[in-house]
Order: sequence, then C-alpha cells, then structure tokens
Amino acid sequence: MTGSTTRQQIVDAADSLFYGRGYAATSFADIAAAVKISRGNFYYHFRTKDEILDAVIEKRLGDRKKLLAVWDETARDAAVRIECFVRIVIANQAKIMAHGCPVGTLTTELARLDHGSKEKANQIMALFRDWLTRQFEELGCGGQAEEHALHVLSWSQGVATLAQAFKDEGFIRREVDQILEWLNSVRPAPATRANAS
Amino acid sequence: MTGSTTRQQIVDAADSLFYGRGYAATSFADIAAAVKISRGNFYYHFRTKDEILDAVIEKRLGDRKKLLAVWDETARDAAVRIECFVRIVIANQAKIMAHGCPVGTLTTELARLDHGSKEKANQIMALFRDWLTRQFEELGCGGQAEEHALHVLSWSQGVATLAQAFKDEGFIRREVDQILEWLNSVRPAPATRANAS
Repeated sequence: MTGSTTRQQIVDAADSLFYGRGYAATSFADIAAAVKISRGNFYYHFRTKDEILDAVIEKRLGDRKKLLAVWDETARDAAVRIECFVRIVIANQAKIMAHGCPVGTLTTELARLDHGSKEKANQIMALFRDWLTRQFEELGCGGQAEEHALHVLSWSQGVATLAQAFKDEGFIRREVDQILEWLNSVRPAPATRANAS
Repeated sequence: MTGSTTRQQIVDAADSLFYGRGYAATSFADIAAAVKISRGNFYYHFRTKDEILDAVIEKRLGDRKKLLAVWDETARDAAVRIECFVRIVIANQAKIMAHGCPVGTLTTELARLDHGSKEKANQIMALFRDWLTRQFEELGCGGQAEEHALHVLSWSQGVATLAQAFKDEGFIRREVDQILEWLNSVRPAPATRANAS
C-alpha cells in the first residue's frame, strides 16, 4: 500500500464514519479499526482525530467543487444546474434517509461543539450558497440572487432532516416538485429552452 | 434539595448540555459536574446517560405539548396557530443561531447513532407534524393537510440549519415572510378574520 493510498483510505474511512455516526461519536480508534493498518503506519499520516477531520473536510470540499464543475460544464443553463442541485435529495435519498445531509449534519455538529474546524466545515455550505447565487444571477434574478440561493439551500436542509426522521419518499418527491415550481416562478423571463445554447 | 427537585435539576442540566453540545459529546460526568451533587445522590436518580436521555426526551415532549396546548387555547384560529409555530424561528433565533433546532438536532443525532431512543425522539417531530396536520385540516386543506404540515416542519428545520451556519437574521425574517405568504396561498377560502369566533 503506497503512502498516498493509505492516507486516502484513512480519510475515506473517517469520512464514512463521520457521516454515518457523527464526528463526536467516532473515535480515533474507530477509524484505525476501520482501515486495519498498524498504529505506526496510521500515526505516520495522522496524529489526532482533528487532523483527520480537516482532511475529511478538504476532501468533501474538493468532491463538491468537482461535482459543481461537472454541472457547470454539462448543464445547458442555470435553471438546469439549479435543478441538478435540487435533485440531489432524490439521487442520494437512501443515504439521506439513513444519515441526513453530510454537509448540514457536520456543520451543525461542529458549530455546537464550537470546534476549531467549524468555519472550515461551513465553507462547504458557503460553496453551495455562492454557486447557487451565481446560477440565480445568470438566471437574471439580480439583487435577489443570494436570497434565492439561501432559500434553495435551506429547503434542501429541511428536506434532508425530515427525510431522515420520517423516511417518506413521497414527501421528498413532492418537495422537489414544489421547489421546481417555485424556481420556475422566480425566473424573471420565461426562457425558451430550445433556444438556449 | 428535595428528591424531585434534584431529579429535575439533573434533567434540566442534561437537556441544556444535549442541546448546546450534542448527546454524544456530553458525558455522564459532564452532567454530574453541571449539577454539582454527590455521586451517590446522582446515582439515586439516574444510573446511565441513556436513562437521563429518556427523561430529557419526556421533558421536551411534555414542554412542547404544553406549548401547543397554549396555542390551541389562545390563538383565534388555525391560521394564527400555524403562524405561532412559524414564528418560533424568530422568537428563538438567538438559541437557534447558536445551536440549531433542539428537536431536529437530537432526532438526527440519535438516528445516526442508531440509538435505542431514536423512535422516542422522533415522537417530538411527530407531535409537531400531527398538530400542524390538524391545523391544516381545520383550515380546510382536507387531503393535503399532512403534506402541508410536513412542508412547514421541513421549512422550519431548513431555516434552523442555515440560521446556525450563517447567523443571518435577515434570512430568517425573509423566510418567515415567504412561508406566511405560502400559508395564505394554500388556504382554500379567504376567511374574514373579523367574523372568526
């Protein structure tokens, strides 16, 4: 196992445990046990759970940036991109019903712990806010772009929390339909999709 | 200090710590330290953190039932009652910006831990859902009453998560205005408030 592979394995295992159980409920030993490497090898890469947490946040931030970049490149226009974001709650519904939203739950947990990495975790939420704001600006929402972005982000967090509490797929689908209807209602001018480049 | 007072003090201290830091991040010793009583006296009331958790959930459930009963008795009609619920996010905004929603965060945390009391914690969320459903039924929303209830509950959870992440009071106020506008739009017939009993 090469150094970078081992490091990546540790980060992936911790990412999964932090998501599945929470940060406080996952110990350094839990992560070591999940990766099954010697203590010496483990310490070569990380000395504390907080070092691993920082690496997990970096990884999540990088993964989300890649995802948004794919949508930026592949989706026809801003409305379709926002729809891609909205539909994550359906694409990831099994995971969300089991563990909630990975971004929202970590942000909440670290803020409550007043943890040194809480601002760093917030960067993922801010990444979504800023990306959504750009989409609403492109859609022509001008000064309302950021509040629309926060509305969609807030919507996604609420849906994730209720989906986890009640495991109701019908609820998720209805909420997606409603927010897409809202999205259509806040577009300043109805664009003809066939004419979009 | 009488027995019931001591027990209540322990439950109140645990309630506050579970809300402020989270369940997993609060130890039995943290609760004992917050109450400042002898270990013997403490053990007379509770032997494990999970016993305290159950008592905290019971207390929270009781407190919410009382709050809803007050609204049932004092608010003029169902629309005003739903508005009371919506405005909790403003009334409690300082706490919510610091720690999130006490109901949502505990439900999420216990579900992720697959904790034995997760269903019990969910009862608080279900209490709000059922109460809101009754209000929407009274409003004349018929078969859509429960989905409207889930929409409002989901909205409140999203607002709490974003309020905690970004500490933006303007966002909270805008979201309250928007959901009240939505509430008005789903009322089957515009009632004349002056005629309501």
